[in-house]
This record gives sequence, structure tokens and C-alpha cells, in this order.
Amino acid sequence: MAKEVTKRSENYSQWYNDLVVKADLAEQSAVRGCMVIKPYGYAIWEKMQRVLDDAFKKTGVQNAYFPLFIPKSFFSREAEHVAGFAKECAVVTHHRLMNDPNGNGVVVDPSAKLEEELIVRPTSETIIWNTYKNWITSWRDLPILCNQWCNVVRWEMRTRLFLRTAEFLWQEGHTAHATAAEAEAKANEMVHVYADFARNVMALPVIIGHKSPNERFAGAIDTLTIEAMMQDGKALQAGTSHFLGQNFAKSFDVTFTNKEGQQEYVWATSWGVSTRLMGALIMAHGDDNGLVLPPAIAPIQVVMVPIYKTDEEHNAILDKMYELKKNLEAKGHSVKIDDRDTLRPGFKFAEWELKGVPVRFAMGPRDLQNGTVEVARRDTLTKETMPLEGIENKIEGLLDDIQKTIYQKAFDFRAQNVEKCDDWEEFKAKIGTGKFLLCHWDGTAETEQAIKDATKATIRCIPVDSFVCEEEGKDIFSGKPSHKRVVFAISY
Amino acid sequence: MAKEVTKRSENYSQWYNDLVVKADLAEQSAVRGCMVIKPYGYAIWEKMQRVLDDAFKKTGVQNAYFPLFIPKSFFSREAEHVAGFAKECAVVTHHRLMNDPNGNGVVVDPSAKLEEELIVRPTSETIIWNTYKNWITSWRDLPILCNQWCNVVRWEMRTRLFLRTAEFLWQEGHTAHATAAEAEAKANEMVHVYADFARNVMALPVIIGHKSPNERFAGAIDTLTIEAMMQDGKALQAGTSHFLGQNFAKSFDVTFTNKEGQQEYVWATSWGVSTRLMGALIMAHGDDNGLVLPPAIAPIQVVMVPIYKTDEEHNAILDKMYELKKNLEAKGHSVKIDDRDTLRPGFKFAEWELKGVPVRFAMGPRDLQNGTVEVARRDTLTKETMPLEGIENKIEGLLDDIQKTIYQKAFDFRAQNVEKCDDWEEFKAKIGTGKFLLCHWDGTAETEQAIKDATKATIRCIPVDSFVCEEEGKDIFSGKPSHKRVVFAISY
Repeated sequence: MAKEVTKRSENYSQWYNDLVVKADLAEQSAVRGCMVIKPYGYAIWEKMQRVLDDAFKKTGVQNAYFPLFIPKSFFSREAEHVAGFAKECAVVTHHRLMNDPNGNGVVVDPSAKLEEELIVRPTSETIIWNTYKNWITSWRDLPILCNQWCNVVRWEMRTRLFLRTAEFLWQEGHTAHATAAEAEAKANEMVHVYADFARNVMALPVIIGHKSPNERFAGAIDTLTIEAMMQDGKALQAGTSHFLGQNFAKSFDVTFTNKEGQQEYVWATSWGVSTRLMGALIMAHGDDNGLVLPPAIAPIQVVMVPIYKTDEEHNAILDKMYELKKNLEAKGHSVKIDDRDTLRPGFKFAEWELKGVPVRFAMGPRDLQNGTVEVARRDTLTKETMPLEGIENKIEGLLDDIQKTIYQKAFDFRAQNVEKCDDWEEFKAKIGTGKFLLCHWDGTAETEQAIKDATKATIRCIPVDSFVCEEEGKDIFSGKPSHKRVVFAISY
Repeated sequence: MAKEVTKRSENYSQWYNDLVVKADLAEQSAVRGCMVIKPYGYAIWEKMQRVLDDAFKKTGVQNAYFPLFIPKSFFSREAEHVAGFAKECAVVTHHRLMNDPNGNGVVVDPSAKLEEELIVRPTSETIIWNTYKNWITSWRDLPILCNQWCNVVRWEMRTRLFLRTAEFLWQEGHTAHATAAEAEAKANEMVHVYADFARNVMALPVIIGHKSPNERFAGAIDTLTIEAMMQDGKALQAGTSHFLGQNFAKSFDVTFTNKEGQQEYVWATSWGVSTRLMGALIMAHGDDNGLVLPPAIAPIQVVMVPIYKTDEEHNAILDKMYELKKNLEAKGHSVKIDDRDTLRPGFKFAEWELKGVPVRFAMGPRDLQNGTVEVARRDTLTKETMPLEGIENKIEGLLDDIQKTIYQKAFDFRAQNVEKCDDWEEFKAKIGTGKFLLCHWDGTAETEQAIKDATKATIRCIPVDSFVCEEEGKDIFSGKPSHKRVVFAISY
């Protein structure tokens, strides 16, 4: 049989790791906290990249590339940024190795010490704004809308594959604008690009909202976020978009001459999503049999398994499968025929279930004779025998239906696990049981911190959609007046 | 007028730098030797990536991602590899910064020293073969055909934008095979993928050949290369593909059980091209007006410049241009309308020439009246007034013709600058004048080194195509017997 997967009910955390490793998505590397993304996992990431990149470009964004290294001194320039980022990071101090004089391999050449240490980028605001300084003179140079796909490093002490790794892959957009309003609009536009992607492609019902000041990006005036609920009821921050005001422009002295001929500091945004999205995908939709991939993000949408005894049967079934494959590919679907002759069909079924392929075709000699195929859905684990005639159109509809069903299931799960809560004792009792609690908050950092200290829960966001939260009430903890509810949850 | 470009005849090296910087391809960053790739330059690189990635995938290669960092000890494992690579590189020694106790920004936290230093990958054979060890048990696990698109760092002392930078972007393919023959065939297949790309997409007539032992990749049994001639007659190595034998498998103890049930070491290849290709593109085709981009790699294939006096004319011309743009885009061409109202047409013409856009449309009121458009070719700098009727089909043909013409020009230039040479005095006189010299070589490293010491010329390759080199003769330097000619040149 296929590889065993721990049941979610037994050990949710182990179930997650099993899926990542056994579905061949990623694994730990020889370097602490750094992962190897395996071909199947990377193929999903590539699909995400392609869809997001197209969406970014539609908004006028262009890709560029900025250095991996950032001079240490850059981090000191933006005071809040240094507090938030400059601590746990990879520091390059030397630029040469040499043969060990004692003959034991290679050692660092002490004479090759850098004058100023370089930091492997944990995020690129500083180096990018130092660059933008040379690109911007006049309002005519604005806006600048750049994005880069790259690797970043944050020296996390506790790592989990995809969710929190020392090195991860992401995109970071950095835009420069002539007015605050334009920058705020861009930050808002991009969080909606992320939300559309999460909802329509990843089948992930996310909440768009503002972060509370405690949870804001280091150096931001406002952070917008998309928050998703995982199957254990915990929240996962799936993407953020920041309005940075003039903070980085001031730190790196980036000014422009406006239309009135006056010098002004430039307004900024930054926004990013990372390979963390892979974690969200796994934990939102997977089941005890493995991954469940929404068709829009699945590297293989339809897998075909031939069932035969004789070579003659084998050849006839394969011929039919290649014909079907060609027709489905012509419709834009990605298809794989699993013709490995050393494995039994049952093993293959389990493996493709583990890997989350949305639709499985099985075809035996009788199917061939009858002009039928057995079609199994990964999301519902149901099977149906369908006539081959017109199957291409049916599969198109089926994939759409699977996409919608996966979204709806996640949406319903969240709906069942979001509650209004107005009582502190009830809050304490429920917050650890896998709920998002919609509570009144007095708007102070002190209250937020006190709630976090008492329960580990944080304000995931102040929603701008998904829930009607505007109403008068009293803070769940302090009892002070509040004008709207916010989302509290335990988070990844 | 547009930005001034140094003439090639005045200062070739400055001309190159002018093109890179003034055509907005790339610039130096605040970090020594690391470049910023600007949106226009990155758009060309993205086109290269897309075409190459599709070509790799057609050969069965899948993308994956391996860690940025490599433990220092890995470099000691493959003796030749350490000699070739482990010297000039970025060394991470610490993982934390802290606030300076004296209040001067941040400093490295001395208590956060890594037990083992990490090297920022200069190439990934070691970390990948350490990973493959866990992926390979049986012949059934082979072949493994992985590629990664990533950044690498080699601490070069003298850097030039695109040609030699401390950090650069590349792809590195790493394959694992059950037999030497299969691995050799893969290395050969990939160098041909590169050559096809160079010739058909970049319009670069490259020579495929083997590297001499002196010029081989550190750890390879055989290195295949594609070598291009730049306009100064120097050679540029544009891509390499290595047959690594069992060297890395032995260093990292990667064995498999073959079909006969015996343990064997795995056979390997690796192959890569980098952002250096950008340098080749610029230097092979550019002229004194700027870049000349082959249509197959141009981010913008057709730029349209409206010429008008009144708003009415402006609107009527723009309407027509948007219609043309739509029709051309439907044919798969990329089109930009340059409607900036603060710049004169002459300025725009010069700017798009500098940026190498293959075709320029200019349209004024009289054109509109006559149903014509002025079409300028970047490669030949010729102009022609064409009827709008049926223009879409003509442009398709024109772009094809430009692609071929650019290739042919580079091909003819090379043909004029490749010579057979059988006399050492003549060799010394000619090798520095921008020639590739086809000479007999006795096959020894000593002779190659002596020639290099005397003239700076190296064996660029032992050609397998492009020239008929098989013939008996005597080594140009030693006079010893030789069975074929090889390509000598001064190289980048």
C-alpha cells in the first residue's frame, strides 16, 4: 500500500508534516531551517507564480531584481524596521576560504574580512529605497511599480516546512508614488489581487483586513492582510500589503519635485506572498488520504491509470488514453498517464490521492469495450462510470465543480467556526478550541497585548470584508467602548 | 536629444557600459559587485527564462529548489571542486545582529556564531548530490532530471555588469543517471538545447565544442560549451554542460542497485546559463545607436510613436494605433504605444533605438489620411512607408526577416574573423586583433598554458560543429603532431 499518513484527529501537526514529505512537496535539507522544494511541490509553486505574476502585470507592475546582500548600516536607518527585522538574520563577514594549513579541508581566510558586514536580505525595502533614490527626481518618474521574485532569509529558531523556514521564496512588490492617496490605493489594490488569487485559484476563503498596530510590518503606517482559517481553526496570514507612508523615503532621502515645483518625500508601498502559501493550501484542504488540490493550482489535473492483464489489453487501453489525453490537453487541462508497470493500480490510486490530483481515470478492458471510463473525484472521494463520448466537456465542468466544492467546503468550515463573543470567560474557554472570535476591542495596544499574554490569541485583522463588524459595544477584555468587532484567533 | 552613447570604435568597453546603463538594463548597486537588474533588462531575462524553461521541460526536466547555503565542509569533499570553487565566496559566520551597546546602530552579535560556517552557493553540485543521496536507492529512481532558477555568488574581484558580477542569476540543471552513456547523452542534449536557443532566439551564431582539460568545470570529466564571438572579436562562453562522471556520487556516497542487483555509483551531469547571456546579447548585436534586440527576445517588438499638432489629430492617430496594437497583439506580437506628451518624437525615436526595439511605427496626420504608416527597422536603420491594409501580416514577415538578418550579420562577422593559423609568429601578431584562430594543438595542458602565458589566448573549445577541424598537422606552439584544429581566442 501507499505511504501511511497520520490522521488529522490523532496528530494534526504530524499529519501536516506527513503530507509535505510523503506527497513529495518538500523536505528538510542539510542546512538547519532551509528546505528542499521537490519537483512536485515546486510545480505547484510555479503555478502560483504564473497566475500571480500575470495579475501583477495587469496592474502595471514590472519585475526587476535587487541584490541578495544588504549593507549592515542600511538596517539602522529606519528605526522601526531595524527593531522588527535586523535581529535574526544571516550575516556575511568574509569573502574567501583557504586550504586549512593543517590539511583539514577548508577554513575561512581571516585576511578576507569584509569592511562592513553584509546581511542576506530578510526583505528588501532598504536596498530598494536606496536604489530608488537614484531613479526619482521629478513627479514624471513616478509611479515606480517594481516586483521581484526571490529568496529571503530570516534566521528562525523553530522552523516548519513551508510555514516557517530560514530561507523561503517569495515575491516582494515595492512601489513609489507622488501622493499618499495613490500609495494607499495601490496597497489596497494589491491586497485585493491576493484575495482574488486566494479565493479563486487556491479556493481559500480569506478575510481581508487591517492589522492592528502591534501586528503591523516594521516600518509600515498600515498593513493590510488576508487571513485564512486552517482545519485546526488556527489562522494563517497568507499575504500582506503595506502602506509605508514616507518612512523609507525619509530614511533614504528619496524626494521628488512635484508639479508645483516643490520638493516632497516619496510615498511607498510594499506587498508580498511567499512559499507559506503552500502551507495554507495543504492545511486548508488536505484530508486523511493526503492533499486535495484545487484544479486551478494542480500541476496534474487528471491522472489516468490503466488496468489490464494482457499486453493486448494494455496497448488498447493506452491507445485510448493517449487519445483522451490529447483531447483534454487541447482544452487546456494537464493530464498524466501513469503507465509504470512495476506498480499495482491500487498503489497508484493511493499515491495520486496522496498527491491530491483532482480527477482520476481508471480504465479496464470492460470499460474499453463499453466505451466508458471510471472517474474518481479527489475532493469527495466518489466514483462514477462515464461514457467516453463527450467526456472532454464533462471534465471541464467537473473540474469547475471540484474547484467550487473545495472552496465551499472551506467556506462552510470557517462559517461554523467563527463566533461573536462578548464575554471574557467565554473567550478564554473557546479561543483555544479552534475558533475565530469576533470581539469588540478598545483599539489600544495594551489591551491587545494583555489578551495575547493571557491566551496567546492575537488580533488577526480588523476586517474590511467577509463579516459585518461595525457596531457599538464594549471591549471583551477592558470593557471600554468599541465601535467595531475584530477577529481574534490563535495563529500560525 | 537622447542619451549619448560612446562609439564602439572610440572605446568598446565604455560603449558596452553605456548600453547597459543608458538602455536601462542594469546598474551597480550599493553592494560591491552586485547589480540591480532594472525592469527593461529583467523583461529580456524573463523572455530568455520562459523559452529556455519550456525547452528544458520538453526534455523531461522538472524544476526544484535547493538551499542558498552550503555547509563549508561540503566543499572539501570533492577535491577538484574545492580547488576550483571554494575560494572566493560569501561566508556566513553569524546569525544575529544586536543593538550596538555604544548606540551606533547595529553590530554583529558575537554570541551568535555558527558552529559551521555556511557558504552562499557559487554552484550547487555539493548540496544537490547530498540531497540526491536520499532520493536514490534503485535503478527505478533514475534518471532524476532537476533544474533550478536561482541566484549564486562568486566573490569576483573585478566585476562588469552582466559579464562578471559577484551575485548573478542563472539556472543550473543537475541530472542523475544509471549509466555513463545516458549521462553523456544528457550533457550533449542540453548543450544542443543551449545552442538552439542561442542561434534561433538570441540570433547568436555559437560554436559547440568540448573544453580542454585546463578550462573544464571543477569536478567534470568533460565540459561542453557554446562559444560566441563579440564585436571586438573576443570570445564569450555563453553556456556550459558538464558530464561529471561519478565524481560527485563518490564524494557524497550516492549509489543505486542496478537491474542486476549490484551497487553502483550514480552518473551525473550539470549545465547552466546565466545573466551573462545579457552581456552576449548586447555585445553581439548592439551598434553605436544602442541595443539591437532580435525580435524573438525583445520585450517590445513594435513601438508606435504618434506625430501630431492638434488634439484632434492626436486622438485620431491614437485611435488608429490602438486598433493596430490590438491586431498585432492578436498575432502574438508585443506592442507599445509611446504616448508621453512631454517628449518630442525625435527624442522618442532615439530612446527606442537605444533600447533596441526591432520595429518602430511613426504615424502623422498625412499617414492617417493616406492609410499609411512609416515603418523603421532597428537592425538596418531603414525606413519605409507602408499601407495599413494588411500590415499585420507584413509585420510578421518583417520581424522574421529582422531575426534572420541579425543572425546573418553576426554570422558573417564571425566568418570574416575566423582564420586558420599555422605559424606561431603570425599567431602572436593576430590573436590580439579580434580574431578566432583555428590552430593545431598537441593536446597537452603544458602547451595550452604556455600559449596563454605568452598571449592571454585560451582554447575556447574543440569544436564539434561549425568548422571542419579534423586534419593532421603540427601544434602551433610545440610543433608536435596534432589531429585536429581547435579554437584559440582572447575571451571575456
